[in-house]
Amino acid sequence: MKIKKPEYYINGVLEQNMRVLAKTITLIESTLPEHQNTAKIIIDKLLPDSGKAVRIGITGVPGVGKSTFIENFGMMLIREKQNVAVLAVDPSSRKSGGSIMGDKTRMEKLSVEKNAFIRPSPSGGTLGGVAGKTRETMIICESAGFDVIIVETVGVGQSETAVASMVDFFLVLMLAGAGDELQGLKKGIFELADAVAINKADGDNIKKAQLAKHEYESALSLLIQQSASWSVPVLTCSAVTLDGIEDIWETILEHRKKLTSTGEYTEKRRKQSLEWMWALLEEGLKSRFFENTNIKKLLPGISREVEKGRKAPNVAANELLSLLK
Amino acid sequence: MKIKKPEYYINGVLEQNMRVLAKTITLIESTLPEHQNTAKIIIDKLLPDSGKAVRIGITGVPGVGKSTFIENFGMMLIREKQNVAVLAVDPSSRKSGGSIMGDKTRMEKLSVEKNAFIRPSPSGGTLGGVAGKTRETMIICESAGFDVIIVETVGVGQSETAVASMVDFFLVLMLAGAGDELQGLKKGIFELADAVAINKADGDNIKKAQLAKHEYESALSLLIQQSASWSVPVLTCSAVTLDGIEDIWETILEHRKKLTSTGEYTEKRRKQSLEWMWALLEEGLKSRFFENTNIKKLLPGISREVEKGRKAPNVAANELLSLLK
Repeated sequence: MKIKKPEYYINGVLEQNMRVLAKTITLIESTLPEHQNTAKIIIDKLLPDSGKAVRIGITGVPGVGKSTFIENFGMMLIREKQNVAVLAVDPSSRKSGGSIMGDKTRMEKLSVEKNAFIRPSPSGGTLGGVAGKTRETMIICESAGFDVIIVETVGVGQSETAVASMVDFFLVLMLAGAGDELQGLKKGIFELADAVAINKADGDNIKKAQLAKHEYESALSLLIQQSASWSVPVLTCSAVTLDGIEDIWETILEHRKKLTSTGEYTEKRRKQSLEWMWALLEEGLKSRFFENTNIKKLLPGISREVEKGRKAPNVAANELLSLLK
Repeated sequence: MKIKKPEYYINGVLEQNMRVLAKTITLIESTLPEHQNTAKIIIDKLLPDSGKAVRIGITGVPGVGKSTFIENFGMMLIREKQNVAVLAVDPSSRKSGGSIMGDKTRMEKLSVEKNAFIRPSPSGGTLGGVAGKTRETMIICESAGFDVIIVETVGVGQSETAVASMVDFFLVLMLAGAGDELQGLKKGIFELADAVAINKADGDNIKKAQLAKHEYESALSLLIQQSASWSVPVLTCSAVTLDGIEDIWETILEHRKKLTSTGEYTEKRRKQSLEWMWALLEEGLKSRFFENTNIKKLLPGISREVEKGRKAPNVAANELLSLLK
């Protein structure tokens, strides 16, 4: 990619030029130092303008109907005069599509809407990297005037915690009576949820979905700590009848209203900024460690000794840390 | 404390001399470099001999009856000819006692048993420090011939994950119909549990406890991923009638048997050793960061800028990392 001056990207984004928006995101996702430097300037410039969108994380294992849900949810938002950006996080979610067009073809209606922007998942990179880029992409999309940003994860990866820490509202999609799907679902996912929605609640499935709703409600109240101002609701929805899709949007707005009134909304955003910084710092410290020549040479052997019980883990840790000096 | 040669501690521990055992633990808990050096020699020598005990983590919020449970559970083990060591982790758990004797007075019967050893919580230190010391203390107790090591946490602190990663079996004590206690309970605690026990299941409370048992069972199967070889059971128990206390021990032994037969037991111990090393490495990397003079000077200001949205978190992280060069 031939790189242009930062102003080209900044102005293009602010003028809501979708082609420039896409190019800017590609620049941000690039790992080339030259690209990264320009990206840094762009983000620094656009950051103060960002933060106005409703940021929603949506997760669910493959088969739960995530793409169809997001398409219908997005189309409903478009009808409500909201501009919608959909960002996919997991590199693995490309498997379903197999190409850059994968995400677009799975949301046929939404992808041709002029008030919608769908960005397929970045190609690989570290978790921190992907999640980091997603945050920056979110900022760029907000500067380009999107009212709602949806960040999608597959629910079985490692990005859920990262995504939950960059959105205002985290929605977990489940199916009725599918205890099996838990086997694939990321551990601790319900701790992150602001709402759970039982999908495919239509036809013969309605009764089962209602039952599941009640079961999840009592399970959540029993096992998951609820905040003083927000109890995680369990909703039902259908991509076929479109029942419940609007309720979810209303729930998200209600959540925003409630937490804004208590000051928790601003507080959450503040905390998220700091968490982002800390996550990047931790990542940076770790990569310095792993890139150290001495560590590279000795880590495998020392790890093996520890695993076999031949070396005490604390002795091993001290040895490795002393190599950094 | 006047320090002796490593052999004094090593031999004393192996000869099951309780006074020397206590002194050795004090040495391990000390932060003086001289003490730490001797401690390292002792642990390195005793590590190959350790690992034979059943390691049990027990957690529950204050009021759940944890001390009484551990006392009765411990006395039952003594009757079954098991030597029992009880280690408390949280500095905060001292609050109840207020002194070194605090933990001993709350377990009156167990503390006078010659086959039991109760070690109050270490005084302060960082979390990693406390948990790190607990692992080492566990090794020392195993070398001193204890068959069962119980590690107790208060369930509201930050040590639960660390403790769960150093024991074979993690037991969460709850009360019947006490949704309120969740408010205090550490997030994500049920993900760590190998069993949940509803305590105080006696008298008028039996029915309620039975109901709670069923509720927890279905909630756990709905929200918490179960392993292929172990589904987290929900038990009931009483310190008054002693009902269920033996069942818990049998459950622990069954867990051990099952996971041993699948090879998961050995695998878990191996993973735990590596996790311990990684936890210490992370702690070490972080403390190097925080002790850096430049970081100390600039971190507060940069954090504030990030929190106020004036500086992009990624720019801040890069700035801070570049200070380390």
